[in-house]
Amino acid sequence: MFTPTSYDTYDFANRRHIGPSPAEMAEMLKAVGVPSLEALIDETVPAAIRQTRPLSWGPMTEHALLAKLRGVAAKNRVMTSLIGQGYYGTVTPPAIQRNILENPAWYTAYTPYQPEIAQGRLEALLNYQTMVADLTGLPVANASLLDEATAAAEAMTMAERAAKSKARAFFVDVNLHPQTIGVIETRALPLGIEIIKGEPEALVPEQVFGAIFQYPGSHGHVRDFTGLIEKLHAAKALAVVATDLLALCLLKEPGAMGADIAVGSAQRFGVPMGYGGPHAAFMATRDELKRAMPGRIVGVSIDSRGNKAYRLSLQTREQHIRREKATSNVCTAQALLAVMASFYAVFHGPVGLRSIAEMVHFNAVRLRDALLAAGAEVAPEAFFDTITVKVGVGQQGIMAAARHRGINLRKVGRDRVGISVDELTDGDVIARVLDAFGIAEPAPETVALGFPETMLRQSAYLTHPVFHMNRAESEMMRYMRRLSDRDLALDRAMIPLGSCTMKLNAAAEMMPIFWPEFSSLHPFAPSNQAEGYAEVIADLEQKLCEITGYDAFSMQPNSGAQGEYAGLMTIAAWHRARGEGHRRVCLIPVSAHGTNPASAHMAGMQVVVVKAAPNGDIDLEDFAAKATEAGDTLAACMITYPSTHGVFEETVKRVCEITHEHGGQVYIDGANMNALVGLVKPGEIGGDVSHLNLHKTFAIPHGGGGPGMGPIGVKAHLAPHLPGHPEVGGVEGPVSAAPYGSASILLISWAYCLMMGGAGLTQATRVAILNANYIAARLKPAYPILFMGNRGRVAHECILDTRAFAEVGVTVDDIAKRLVDNGFHAPTMSWPVAGTLMVEPTESETKAELDRFITAMEAIRAEIDDVAAGRIGAEDSPLRRAPHTVEDLVADWDRPYSREQGCFPPGAFREDKYWPPVGRVDNVYGDRHLVCTCPPVEDWM
Amino acid sequence: MFTPTSYDTYDFANRRHIGPSPAEMAEMLKAVGVPSLEALIDETVPAAIRQTRPLSWGPMTEHALLAKLRGVAAKNRVMTSLIGQGYYGTVTPPAIQRNILENPAWYTAYTPYQPEIAQGRLEALLNYQTMVADLTGLPVANASLLDEATAAAEAMTMAERAAKSKARAFFVDVNLHPQTIGVIETRALPLGIEIIKGEPEALVPEQVFGAIFQYPGSHGHVRDFTGLIEKLHAAKALAVVATDLLALCLLKEPGAMGADIAVGSAQRFGVPMGYGGPHAAFMATRDELKRAMPGRIVGVSIDSRGNKAYRLSLQTREQHIRREKATSNVCTAQALLAVMASFYAVFHGPVGLRSIAEMVHFNAVRLRDALLAAGAEVAPEAFFDTITVKVGVGQQGIMAAARHRGINLRKVGRDRVGISVDELTDGDVIARVLDAFGIAEPAPETVALGFPETMLRQSAYLTHPVFHMNRAESEMMRYMRRLSDRDLALDRAMIPLGSCTMKLNAAAEMMPIFWPEFSSLHPFAPSNQAEGYAEVIADLEQKLCEITGYDAFSMQPNSGAQGEYAGLMTIAAWHRARGEGHRRVCLIPVSAHGTNPASAHMAGMQVVVVKAAPNGDIDLEDFAAKATEAGDTLAACMITYPSTHGVFEETVKRVCEITHEHGGQVYIDGANMNALVGLVKPGEIGGDVSHLNLHKTFAIPHGGGGPGMGPIGVKAHLAPHLPGHPEVGGVEGPVSAAPYGSASILLISWAYCLMMGGAGLTQATRVAILNANYIAARLKPAYPILFMGNRGRVAHECILDTRAFAEVGVTVDDIAKRLVDNGFHAPTMSWPVAGTLMVEPTESETKAELDRFITAMEAIRAEIDDVAAGRIGAEDSPLRRAPHTVEDLVADWDRPYSREQGCFPPGAFREDKYWPPVGRVDNVYGDRHLVCTCPPVEDWM
Repeated sequence: MFTPTSYDTYDFANRRHIGPSPAEMAEMLKAVGVPSLEALIDETVPAAIRQTRPLSWGPMTEHALLAKLRGVAAKNRVMTSLIGQGYYGTVTPPAIQRNILENPAWYTAYTPYQPEIAQGRLEALLNYQTMVADLTGLPVANASLLDEATAAAEAMTMAERAAKSKARAFFVDVNLHPQTIGVIETRALPLGIEIIKGEPEALVPEQVFGAIFQYPGSHGHVRDFTGLIEKLHAAKALAVVATDLLALCLLKEPGAMGADIAVGSAQRFGVPMGYGGPHAAFMATRDELKRAMPGRIVGVSIDSRGNKAYRLSLQTREQHIRREKATSNVCTAQALLAVMASFYAVFHGPVGLRSIAEMVHFNAVRLRDALLAAGAEVAPEAFFDTITVKVGVGQQGIMAAARHRGINLRKVGRDRVGISVDELTDGDVIARVLDAFGIAEPAPETVALGFPETMLRQSAYLTHPVFHMNRAESEMMRYMRRLSDRDLALDRAMIPLGSCTMKLNAAAEMMPIFWPEFSSLHPFAPSNQAEGYAEVIADLEQKLCEITGYDAFSMQPNSGAQGEYAGLMTIAAWHRARGEGHRRVCLIPVSAHGTNPASAHMAGMQVVVVKAAPNGDIDLEDFAAKATEAGDTLAACMITYPSTHGVFEETVKRVCEITHEHGGQVYIDGANMNALVGLVKPGEIGGDVSHLNLHKTFAIPHGGGGPGMGPIGVKAHLAPHLPGHPEVGGVEGPVSAAPYGSASILLISWAYCLMMGGAGLTQATRVAILNANYIAARLKPAYPILFMGNRGRVAHECILDTRAFAEVGVTVDDIAKRLVDNGFHAPTMSWPVAGTLMVEPTESETKAELDRFITAMEAIRAEIDDVAAGRIGAEDSPLRRAPHTVEDLVADWDRPYSREQGCFPPGAFREDKYWPPVGRVDNVYGDRHLVCTCPPVEDWM
Repeated sequence: MFTPTSYDTYDFANRRHIGPSPAEMAEMLKAVGVPSLEALIDETVPAAIRQTRPLSWGPMTEHALLAKLRGVAAKNRVMTSLIGQGYYGTVTPPAIQRNILENPAWYTAYTPYQPEIAQGRLEALLNYQTMVADLTGLPVANASLLDEATAAAEAMTMAERAAKSKARAFFVDVNLHPQTIGVIETRALPLGIEIIKGEPEALVPEQVFGAIFQYPGSHGHVRDFTGLIEKLHAAKALAVVATDLLALCLLKEPGAMGADIAVGSAQRFGVPMGYGGPHAAFMATRDELKRAMPGRIVGVSIDSRGNKAYRLSLQTREQHIRREKATSNVCTAQALLAVMASFYAVFHGPVGLRSIAEMVHFNAVRLRDALLAAGAEVAPEAFFDTITVKVGVGQQGIMAAARHRGINLRKVGRDRVGISVDELTDGDVIARVLDAFGIAEPAPETVALGFPETMLRQSAYLTHPVFHMNRAESEMMRYMRRLSDRDLALDRAMIPLGSCTMKLNAAAEMMPIFWPEFSSLHPFAPSNQAEGYAEVIADLEQKLCEITGYDAFSMQPNSGAQGEYAGLMTIAAWHRARGEGHRRVCLIPVSAHGTNPASAHMAGMQVVVVKAAPNGDIDLEDFAAKATEAGDTLAACMITYPSTHGVFEETVKRVCEITHEHGGQVYIDGANMNALVGLVKPGEIGGDVSHLNLHKTFAIPHGGGGPGMGPIGVKAHLAPHLPGHPEVGGVEGPVSAAPYGSASILLISWAYCLMMGGAGLTQATRVAILNANYIAARLKPAYPILFMGNRGRVAHECILDTRAFAEVGVTVDDIAKRLVDNGFHAPTMSWPVAGTLMVEPTESETKAELDRFITAMEAIRAEIDDVAAGRIGAEDSPLRRAPHTVEDLVADWDRPYSREQGCFPPGAFREDKYWPPVGRVDNVYGDRHLVCTCPPVEDWM
């Protein structure tokens, strides 16, 4: 009888994501010193917490997955959405789609903390900041925030920090988008900030430390806030303006009104709506307030040769979130989307952007005029792109008539409909809208300006040469290629960042996100147009519940930190609902992610820090004592599992029990979920809430610093208190602008889960643990491993203790930069322990790549030994002079080691070596000379 | 009144493809010395030949185009095609799709004639050759041919050249695919080769110089030809075997049968059917015959440091086609598709491929057994993937029943249907097929082998480490990235190749080719499943007719050279049909592309060469004399317009008139159509036939050496004699395997035409002429311009005369390699005049990029002057030592010029410099030590 060979790897069902081949695994297990993978897991993951049933679903081939996704896509219905409310039709230039969004060199990159290997995306983000600063008329912009609503809430707390007013209230213009108001209210509550809502005229400046206005308003109003802002300033309060970048190409800018902070969304600059995201939000401010601004800021500095080099400025604010004193936990940006928006601006330049804005406005006025001519009542008087029409009891009828013509309008109150014109609106769309109103005559061809001339923008913008480059596609394509070539991303090498889980983002998973059926949906489109999305979200939720042992999920949070905040808010709401709102203490181990205490603070909790035992574990005694002390004020504990030290602590169940005994809830941070999937369910070991970093464990790419997704899972009792949303209901307030966060990238995680199947996911976890233990076993002779479990094993990451080398003058920085010469991104530096390196290889890496890394690290150790033995001075060593550039090679060589040693250390590729475009970047210079928009070209001649 | 600014560049309707901005154009016109673009065109293009009416259609935005394409796509119906006949369902690994097919670094590359900047694709093509050689069991394979039918025809002529038999007939197994037989017969006719068709047993070896057999046969037969091949050899005849790579993973290979040549298609190795193409065909042969093999062969050589370096071997056969004595005009390969197929093999490795083959066979046997069990009459006895079922008068009914279940079967004769199982065939497909036959019971789960055990393959294959690398996607992605980084393509720099027209391949144009509605269609699917394609082809044909002034087009030819052949065959058929088959003389100017005489020879014509006048134009007197001499034997003339010297000859109309006066037909080679579109219609100035290089003028990418498309346009009287096809009819024989050639890439040219509009296309032509004249004007002081029109203008390209520099020891090669240091691909070398460089910038390049090139060329001239003045010896100069590599920098520097001068000549990017991975490649070594499969790794340690 003939039977075909079983070919597991046939469609890469599991092998796609799992790096080591079976033969390689056998060698690795030998090096680790265990007989089998299962034995390693048994030594690593405490038996008491192991899940008993395997995950239930089978794997799927790439081909079958893509076919299934096509079927699901067909269940979404792509209509022309003129709903507006923060989301607009836009044209993504295909060259940007192809060369950025479909290019792993861009989307697999990490946040540019290591500037030497990130000059390309840093330049693109600097372009973004320049664009935002120019358009808002405020000199300092950050490199993006999660969404407009979050940016508005951050602006509120920033105003609170920065305002001299002692008032405790914040004024909110009712013309803000409802979701923005919702997120602000959610955020204000635990911070004790009173929200005063009203039309702008209702503002009493002396009552508030700040106010936020919006123009164009959610229903279209265009107003000049100059007078109100003056009054606010007189009362020592600050003014925030939410606005729209496209409108600012035509309208007077916030800076010209005197605004202190401007926020908004860059979505309509070429980023598809994607049923809610991801998109980049922006924030800009006056120079005096820049140090109070949340988020990342790209700045300009110099490298070791004095050449221009970009870097993240003012980093202390971000990488080392101010723990329990923090008022912001912002940790993720929307880098990839900010890059897209910046390229949209580069493509169009100021003339093009203005022309698009004019066309949008022209079409809006045409529409208004035609409606007026037919006798309709249209508001507002002054508008840019959005109008509302009074339709009385005919509201449902008009909306249905429009839908019948392929168009979604916005329901406004009980008797109006809203219409927002966008870049895609053409004569045909206008005719269909008018037809829905029964208006036959064409829209007028000549129109008057739809707002007062005093609101016309007077100042120039996008004057930097980058916005005036030749816009032929060849030139643009080459610019994008050049930038990406400067960077090191997963498409070239392992990125062994502890806690960051830089794993494969498979091509098949990435493909559907740009299909029109997924990318073109408005987040507030009627639900019967989004049945495909509903299916994806429901099935992903069901699978995540099975993986985590929780009962319900909210997909709303757009980042891990936002998930933490949302989870704690859920706990707080549950306590409140049970009449125990006084429970405010949150126990957090000293080794926690900095975002943990920051999130707790934002959720109105009082952080009590728990000590670490000498082995790095939670000090159980201290934990119990502090829980007892808190007593009936104990709200929660926040722990990470396996611990941030990379260890499966045996005591985790006891920690949960103690918390529960005192009436608290257990928050288990999901950052290390990559070590748990299929082996341990946080919901089964005592967790009540967890967030999952879908951009870590579930294959969403890091995008050079975002997007992220941080959905939260909860036990059933907490489910009613998950975040709500003004558009879809719920008891609690929203934490994000869109009901399902960045819905379009949920497809990636879903695809990952479907293709891997339960067994594949479990194997990925096992191999992640194997890869980490292999590195630990191999590097132990060269670098002490800082924390290990009882049986000498690490979890999915390990900490290399490099502190002793500081005594001979070699720092972690030196090691990190020397790794660039080997073509590697550095491991996580100085976290969770200062002066150490935390390595997380993930399951995606092959033995060959791990060995290349080990070779590199061993060679570095030999170079350290040279320094220690006095054979070379630390200052003169290749460690300190790293990274080595082509400029170093071309210049005179004045170093005590050879060019060969400098440039081709063991582990580096020869023919395919990555050359950093700059030498070591000067951090001090950059912070002292803060420049965070594109520098004038002549400065760098 | 408010009116929006007109924004022509809004959706890049024209600016996408047109490099210089209006401001740049003004500066360039000044440098050229003309007041306006129109004035330049008036000075360049003779008034007498200018078309009078502008092209009629308007432009379209990218967004509108993609929407239109989605609508057209919806008119195609994707079914499961089990038609077989050379085209099979296959899974393209998404990582290959994303990182090769969707990556401009791969698809915008040129043919790897300059090996130093092409090491990546040369390695991928070497992998392809190794794969083909291994699977066929024949040691030498080429780097692909246009399609299986063309490969079979080429094998026939190769056998004729190489066989010692004096017979004039060639035996053709009737088990070949009908289109293969058709193309062989078409090719044989003008060459005077008699075709004898029959079942293999009918072969009389003494009658033939060679024979071609096929297994699996078109209807499935698997036979061992060993005995027949022995008999052929005994008669000094050669044996060609057409076969299938997937089948060879399981079946005894042609080499083991003693075959001399094997041919076939690599389509089912991960390349979608695409309604006919493009796909790579393969050819492999015995070592003794390698110098008779057509097409490109990648070989292994060494560079200036003795390191391994790949290059095209035996190039003389290709780049300098043997003109009038040629028996093959093969000039294009299917490099991009060969690369995809090679990566498919790397992804799966021998175990995976064998497993896929086993699964296909297993499913075929299951199907056969279920049909047999139900009492059906099934053939053949021995098969791999294809069977036929006798259905009698129920044929139409069964086929309709299958279609009703989403499945296309093959109509075989009047009473059978054919079923070909492929990689996509699963249990569900089998069940649906059986259901169409009314068979309810499931297919059996255990089966016997469907062919004799003696036909099982005994030998190993794909033993080289590259086919055993770790197949985790991260590793694969990085391998693809590394290879692409070694190469220089249009995504990094201008490729100023005269005659090759390396213009932008816009992202929007490339996007649809992988949509399933276009990529998954079988070329012989019922026409009502391909209405979208029909619309595309008809509209493109209409537009090409308007552009060229012809009345009808055939989309069948897969390359320019194949177009030439097809066009001349059309002329020959017309003469024959009019009883003038004796007309055989074809006049060809001495400056013609080498393919022209080769094609003429293949079409059975007798080439008469016409002299050139001193200014490079056709010598009109000589032309008239030779036409008169030919008299009523004159069949045709073949001219290129503008001339291959880059000049608009004033006499072109007269040349056409003379030809017509003597009863001949005018073939105008469309290679230089990029200088004509919108300005001159070849069909209006006297042309009867032209081919268009869609991969030049009409934006199809070169793909690193293919795909190409060379459709031919003809005047009405020739239309009935355009190539026919066994599947779609027609009077004449086919020239390609598929009726519309590589149909799926016609989408690119169609999209290009639609987006540009008539005015945009015309402007592109004008700017192509401007760019060439700008380069000529700027470089004239440094390099004499060899040919110019009467008014001192060149057309769309110009020839830099570098012959004088040879006197001081500087060759064109030196200049070409030195340009690599500047980050440029060299211009066309030594064609059409030996020792010169022909530069064609195309309209896509911006002034900045042209200036960068001019700067580089001026600096090279200065370096030549240094040599001429004796300041440096030619051997020691940076010209001869070019290109400079990182290895040169790291090593001791023993050169009389600085590292800086060597590596950063004027024009080179600094931060973003391209570094060639090898130094100058040794051609002589490579040809002397011909290695054309992957070398053992230890050879290069």
